[in-house]
Amino acid sequence: AIAFAMHGHAYSVGILDADIHGPCVPKMLGMDGQRLTVGPIGALPAVGPLGVKVVSMEFLLGSKEIPVIWRGPLKMIAIQQFLSEIAWGELDFLLIDLPPGTGDEPLSVMQLIPEMDGVVIVTIPSEVSQIVVSKAITFSRQLKVPVIGIIENMSGFVCPKCGTETDIFKVGGGQKISEELNVPFLGKIPLDPRICEDSDRGLPFILEHPDSPAAKAFMEIVEKIEGFLKEKGQDC
Amino acid sequence: AIAFAMHGHAYSVGILDADIHGPCVPKMLGMDGQRLTVGPIGALPAVGPLGVKVVSMEFLLGSKEIPVIWRGPLKMIAIQQFLSEIAWGELDFLLIDLPPGTGDEPLSVMQLIPEMDGVVIVTIPSEVSQIVVSKAITFSRQLKVPVIGIIENMSGFVCPKCGTETDIFKVGGGQKISEELNVPFLGKIPLDPRICEDSDRGLPFILEHPDSPAAKAFMEIVEKIEGFLKEKGQDC
Repeated sequence: AIAFAMHGHAYSVGILDADIHGPCVPKMLGMDGQRLTVGPIGALPAVGPLGVKVVSMEFLLGSKEIPVIWRGPLKMIAIQQFLSEIAWGELDFLLIDLPPGTGDEPLSVMQLIPEMDGVVIVTIPSEVSQIVVSKAITFSRQLKVPVIGIIENMSGFVCPKCGTETDIFKVGGGQKISEELNVPFLGKIPLDPRICEDSDRGLPFILEHPDSPAAKAFMEIVEKIEGFLKEKGQDC
Repeated sequence: AIAFAMHGHAYSVGILDADIHGPCVPKMLGMDGQRLTVGPIGALPAVGPLGVKVVSMEFLLGSKEIPVIWRGPLKMIAIQQFLSEIAWGELDFLLIDLPPGTGDEPLSVMQLIPEMDGVVIVTIPSEVSQIVVSKAITFSRQLKVPVIGIIENMSGFVCPKCGTETDIFKVGGGQKISEELNVPFLGKIPLDPRICEDSDRGLPFILEHPDSPAAKAFMEIVEKIEGFLKEKGQDC
């Protein structure tokens, strides 16, 4: 979302945090404690950095300690209301952040938005995590949603003291599975302690450290996603 | 499970992989491609390293690419059957591996096993992940299941070349939240690339690298959990 806006275009971007049990988007965008406001045509999204509109379960809870102890059907209703009862306004992009797996949240989103442009799958490089990735790809294909590609996150770590690179979670697993399953590979994002620090402080890492290798990797991935959407005939 | 067995006691241990959408236990224990076998009194668990009995959705699927596209109620039935229709035999410990969050899987497990000894919560140190931890603790308390404690995973990384320690996902977040929410803190496990390598090869890290700081941290945590269970009057 933020990355799209940085390109200098005046995109209108929304983020729907569809991780009902672990809604982390507000904290990561510095929107802790915000609430949805009610306007004449429905509830209004909260507005975060660069004007990004955000809706999250977290905005409806009174405290961060309150869990949402709901079974699947209730989660589907919540996601449905986030899509239909929120006055999002005109959006160029709606990003939907989903929890891992192929459960109620992604199933609800894909069934509720049949015209979805595609899904981006984020993984760490390890083989263990590729089990979940391959299931997610099969899942998307069965539901006839295009797979835009795979991002390999936490891909190698360079010691800030001596410059030695260590592949803490191995490296290359994302690329390997994208070739095996014939899905585009979008890029690798290296480990950088400042990503975690910035997220905890609610500051977008790519705005805080635009010259870091990780931020450059993010931007290259954004360009590939823009390319995919342009080819699909989107206005972007 | 494995850690308990290593103490020299002849414990009988079972692992129920209750992550229906992302079942990773078989791969991590080198049990890829195994299936449940059917005996006269029900389906039998697969048997892994050190005789640990394992049941996982992965043993029922034909290929690792097949996703389980189920909504919550079906997942509850699956977990129920894993508990009631599997001939586990006499067990000293049944470990249940759950996906993150407070959704159908943990809710089903806690409702189906009212006499559960307790839950162990594993987190990374970052503040963002503490949102999910605090919800999980409230969840356990509301369902009246004791919280045995919190483990801080991925807690710091020591460069193998120069020995410099970098807190890639920060450090101390697990301890901090355990104090805030008055829950025992069980210990910190440092990042070690060999944990990922061994898991991908299906070899238990603590057997492969028993003298590593991470393995020693694992064993100290196991002792604390044993202590908790002893105090609860368990025979261990």
